[in-house]
Amino acid sequence: MPDKLMRMHRATIDAGNPRKRPVMLAIAGDSAAGKTTLTQGLVEALGPGASVSVCVDDYHKYDRQERKDKPFTPLHPDCNYIGIMEQHLQLLATGQPILKPVYDHSTGELTRPQLVEPSDAVIIEGLLPLHSKMARACFDVSVYLDPPEEIRREWKIKRDTSKRGYEAEQVVAELERREPESEAFIRPQRSHADIVVRFAPIEGRDDPPGTPLSATVLLRPTIRHPKLHEMMADVGDGAMHLKLMRDEDGKPVDALHIHGHAPPEDSRMVAKAIWDSLGTTDPLPETLGQLGPGERNEPLALTQLILLYHLMRPRG
Amino acid sequence: MPDKLMRMHRATIDAGNPRKRPVMLAIAGDSAAGKTTLTQGLVEALGPGASVSVCVDDYHKYDRQERKDKPFTPLHPDCNYIGIMEQHLQLLATGQPILKPVYDHSTGELTRPQLVEPSDAVIIEGLLPLHSKMARACFDVSVYLDPPEEIRREWKIKRDTSKRGYEAEQVVAELERREPESEAFIRPQRSHADIVVRFAPIEGRDDPPGTPLSATVLLRPTIRHPKLHEMMADVGDGAMHLKLMRDEDGKPVDALHIHGHAPPEDSRMVAKAIWDSLGTTDPLPETLGQLGPGERNEPLALTQLILLYHLMRPRG
Repeated sequence: MPDKLMRMHRATIDAGNPRKRPVMLAIAGDSAAGKTTLTQGLVEALGPGASVSVCVDDYHKYDRQERKDKPFTPLHPDCNYIGIMEQHLQLLATGQPILKPVYDHSTGELTRPQLVEPSDAVIIEGLLPLHSKMARACFDVSVYLDPPEEIRREWKIKRDTSKRGYEAEQVVAELERREPESEAFIRPQRSHADIVVRFAPIEGRDDPPGTPLSATVLLRPTIRHPKLHEMMADVGDGAMHLKLMRDEDGKPVDALHIHGHAPPEDSRMVAKAIWDSLGTTDPLPETLGQLGPGERNEPLALTQLILLYHLMRPRG
Repeated sequence: MPDKLMRMHRATIDAGNPRKRPVMLAIAGDSAAGKTTLTQGLVEALGPGASVSVCVDDYHKYDRQERKDKPFTPLHPDCNYIGIMEQHLQLLATGQPILKPVYDHSTGELTRPQLVEPSDAVIIEGLLPLHSKMARACFDVSVYLDPPEEIRREWKIKRDTSKRGYEAEQVVAELERREPESEAFIRPQRSHADIVVRFAPIEGRDDPPGTPLSATVLLRPTIRHPKLHEMMADVGDGAMHLKLMRDEDGKPVDALHIHGHAPPEDSRMVAKAIWDSLGTTDPLPETLGQLGPGERNEPLALTQLILLYHLMRPRG
């Protein structure tokens, strides 16, 4: 080992203080797929100081003004410091702090960076956290949010007109402009996730507007999931069920369906079973499933609980 | 090795492309000690693309406005992200890019960060690059600029009134305010440098104003220096000499004195010998020693050449 590397290595050892490695969770998905809602519920359930969330869309290379001259949208890897994102993911995964760039969505400007110190759980959400092999290697659990396109369009129009100051036509035009890059860079991440979550109306039913969305949670055997087939043995097969099926690529996968009109007793029984399997004496967090003030969705609550299971279970 | 670390490790190997490690040079010293002048001369002599320089004063935690409420000046380690500076030094030293924070000296604001990719030589200058053991471990060569305080005060007043929009009284007051932290954090770095450079009038002489400053270059045997005792065998002992002496701590050290009125032939002969010892066929850079347009200082030129030697010599 050359001198300087040896010195750096020794200085690291002398610095002592072996860093605790956090659990790293990725939440990938297209714009307005529900990443922030899912993340906020997890952060709140884990409680103050127990987690930190990072949005990797902050790694934009160009501000809004500069992007006007570029031949791509923020969805393109070339529009982002992917290499620096990978580096920062590695640092966080090994328990080290980062000075994270900051993109201000309201002004479209890149501003002063922020210090992020990893806590026990680190949640990384954004457009491209699962884009590269190096980035994927940093996660213990990865999720892809996969709403049907028509639902996502609705969500994006609603959010961007109410919170980001755009007109509906602008949002629709932007969706069109982004579609080729969504196809090329965002959607391929689906196949790399341990868990794929789809919130949607139940197919083949014509539920009235306002009916709570259902969820389909694909649990790939790439990581160790809660033993849902045991936990759900006593649940009636109607509004909630676990189905063994083949994934798009033919590999076996568990699909958990939770209907929007599933009886809360059923989903809470499963929730409690998952929670108890963690061996914690804390009560089940009450805040799960919150969509907005006073608005609660049982499928979202159960989805968040499955992710909590992965964030909280003891590592081996 | 736990799963995730193994995966990260494999992904690193798969990424291939073994990174070339640059030569890392630190130039430490108090405000207005001459760091930028020395650095710019080296960058210019090395030529486009051959080096990159980073000012670690960019790692300020607070902007000028926020500092008003703090009980310390920018010289205090607590006023800087020292941990992140160390991390970035380690990344650069191992050939990796960083997204460097940026402090704008003209406005006193922290602004959007910049990508820095290491080239063959990386020059790190600033107030505290040698403050911590971890930071020091990252350097192949380190320099401390040590002008007499009265000279540095003159330089600081001149620069801050002409380039940073301050009044002379403000600069004097700031120098007073900073003195305890200079003593506590800046000057102790002197003892950690491989090379200590002092530009000053010759002691005991009463040269008229405008006489070029002389240089004393302390070469500590912590690294392998050019063989000056051989190279200077034919140089008259008057205006330039190498003296074996004891350092402040009693350790043996070589002190190279170059008088401001040394004949350029003498210093250029030594310069040529150092240059030739590098085995390069390129001509000796003409830009060394430049203080300003048309203003050249032979002691500065020779000091820069000694540093060039360290930046350019083949590593073993």
